[in-house]
Amino acid sequence: MNREELIFQIKKKQSFLCIGLDSDIDKIPKHLLEFQDPIFEFNKQIIDSTKDMCVAYKPNIAFYESLGSKGWESLQNTLEYIPNDILTIADAKRGDIGNTTKKYAYTFFEHMDFDAVTVSPYMGSDSIIPFLDFKDKWAIILALTSNPGSLDFQNFKNKKEKPLFKQVIETSKDLGSINNIMFVVGATKAEQLLEIRQIIPSHFLLVPGVGAQGGSLKDVAKYAMNSDCGILVNSSRSIIYSGSGLNFAEKAALEASKLQQEMSLILSEIGI
Amino acid sequence: MNREELIFQIKKKQSFLCIGLDSDIDKIPKHLLEFQDPIFEFNKQIIDSTKDMCVAYKPNIAFYESLGSKGWESLQNTLEYIPNDILTIADAKRGDIGNTTKKYAYTFFEHMDFDAVTVSPYMGSDSIIPFLDFKDKWAIILALTSNPGSLDFQNFKNKKEKPLFKQVIETSKDLGSINNIMFVVGATKAEQLLEIRQIIPSHFLLVPGVGAQGGSLKDVAKYAMNSDCGILVNSSRSIIYSGSGLNFAEKAALEASKLQQEMSLILSEIGI
Repeated sequence: MNREELIFQIKKKQSFLCIGLDSDIDKIPKHLLEFQDPIFEFNKQIIDSTKDMCVAYKPNIAFYESLGSKGWESLQNTLEYIPNDILTIADAKRGDIGNTTKKYAYTFFEHMDFDAVTVSPYMGSDSIIPFLDFKDKWAIILALTSNPGSLDFQNFKNKKEKPLFKQVIETSKDLGSINNIMFVVGATKAEQLLEIRQIIPSHFLLVPGVGAQGGSLKDVAKYAMNSDCGILVNSSRSIIYSGSGLNFAEKAALEASKLQQEMSLILSEIGI
Repeated sequence: MNREELIFQIKKKQSFLCIGLDSDIDKIPKHLLEFQDPIFEFNKQIIDSTKDMCVAYKPNIAFYESLGSKGWESLQNTLEYIPNDILTIADAKRGDIGNTTKKYAYTFFEHMDFDAVTVSPYMGSDSIIPFLDFKDKWAIILALTSNPGSLDFQNFKNKKEKPLFKQVIETSKDLGSINNIMFVVGATKAEQLLEIRQIIPSHFLLVPGVGAQGGSLKDVAKYAMNSDCGILVNSSRSIIYSGSGLNFAEKAALEASKLQQEMSLILSEIGI
């Protein structure tokens, strides 16, 4: 999916919601364990009930990988089930030397046909570039994450008081364009979004941390939106695990709907 | 495998060689493609011919993941085939928020029973700690890698001229001990090994970059060895792809043997 299509979907659905499919075999409703592929069944029902309220789904690969080859089948089935007009993000946080990164890019973009992959930048440019060689595909580079440990290294500052995460953004943005690079910027640091927008006014930002991790949607919108919207706000656990009974998918839809309505108001305020 | 067992194996085999099983379906000898599981057959023959000359095998997960669920089966078969007295390292470079990292740790340590996993530290302490909760298992943390892009961020310096990779080592070493943490330090920067040894005199270092990437074994040994040996030197492509015919495994054994003999000399010089 390219940038224009993504913006079109945001306008059409009045939503910039990304739903994280962190589908954990230990947390999904117990009645699903009777299905042949419980994780796929969980995702299928979540997708059926929320697909009109979000513009992206983001399975975190850890939860599928932990089930071995069976987990990869659940992931593939899930990916094929997601409607084509919704952006698919493999939250894999991969990154390796060039020839190895090529393999990861092949895995997620060709073998599996995801639209985007999250990328860990620690190993530098050659661990990012191979993800940029695919038409209408995206590398979503970790810049400032929303977890407690994010400050350990991402906030490591040089003598001009520039933190590492800004260096990552400055270096990485020139490896591609606004058409194939996004950045992960955690919502728990909303005020820093403004500084980041000075470096990359036009790139899309993937913003985790709203919901279970405590970030505020209004703050994120205030500091990070641009005239194309320019943000995808992710929520995982607070949507997909809002219910644990037979009606779990309805409850997930209710949570997604609350966020979508809030997003619709925000979008209309800036005329999108 | 714990530290004592690893050191015992190094002394017994007179080797600190780690062989990288970067087994690429596009690069393995063509005659293997007739087997039901070509990647496993390749690894099996490499393991049969080199197991007496190395103390560790390190499959890079990218090459297995690129084949989907079939690749994960090849990886599992390979892991089960590796003799128990050889350290097994999942070169996965994983790292995510705490609850997700737990899943990755489960995948590689419980579901698959690897001895060690490589970890990308960009997301900080809580992306590392879950790997340290398993008895006789290891987190091998990326510090200074051997690829061209490694300088982009790993060498980002603070106002006291301390580079990020040193900050990563200083912060990470206190999360565990010399019994469950190793660090990746590229051989292409041999002189920096000496500085690293001042911070962590006793930790094991996993050193890639000897062979195809151009690092010198003698320099590595000179600057990085300690009285327990303290290093594992990895070679991947220059061993496993040294031949492409029916006798590929013999050729791999020959390359591994050259390195093992050089290592034996180095070990005897310091009385190990």
